[in-house]
Amino acid sequence: MKAIVTVMLKAGVLDPQGKAIGHALHTLGFPGVGEVRAGKVIELELSAANPEDARTQAEEMARKLLANSVIESFKVEVA
Amino acid sequence: MKAIVTVMLKAGVLDPQGKAIGHALHTLGFPGVGEVRAGKVIELELSAANPEDARTQAEEMARKLLANSVIESFKVEVA
Repeated sequence: MKAIVTVMLKAGVLDPQGKAIGHALHTLGFPGVGEVRAGKVIELELSAANPEDARTQAEEMARKLLANSVIESFKVEVA
Repeated sequence: MKAIVTVMLKAGVLDPQGKAIGHALHTLGFPGVGEVRAGKVIELELSAANPEDARTQAEEMARKLLANSVIESFKVEVA
């Protein structure tokens, strides 16, 4: 079973990587770009019996390792 | 309009970051973790008139800047 954990900086936390991407896109000729936020995505192959188990496991992994809860939030999708 | 570009390494391309995360999860006591792949997600605020335009713009941005097409693939979602 596959779980996809998406980790983004929380709103209000400065995102220099996103800012750099935004500037680069403006320079490349995309004037219509507003705010840009950059984050991580982690795809996990899990040996869980059912989607609920997979979600619970992935959420625990996100809390313990994948996301820094001080500045990042995460969401889990199970496919 | 918001576009979300997800960039992952193509299948077969070695992913040391994913491997490191997998090892760390095993060490933390998650034995059921198989393959782990790490990627990037970029959320763009676009001043596009409609979802089709936003998707076209985001795909062009991904091809020109956000993804390295030699080793990475991308997908675009418009919200």
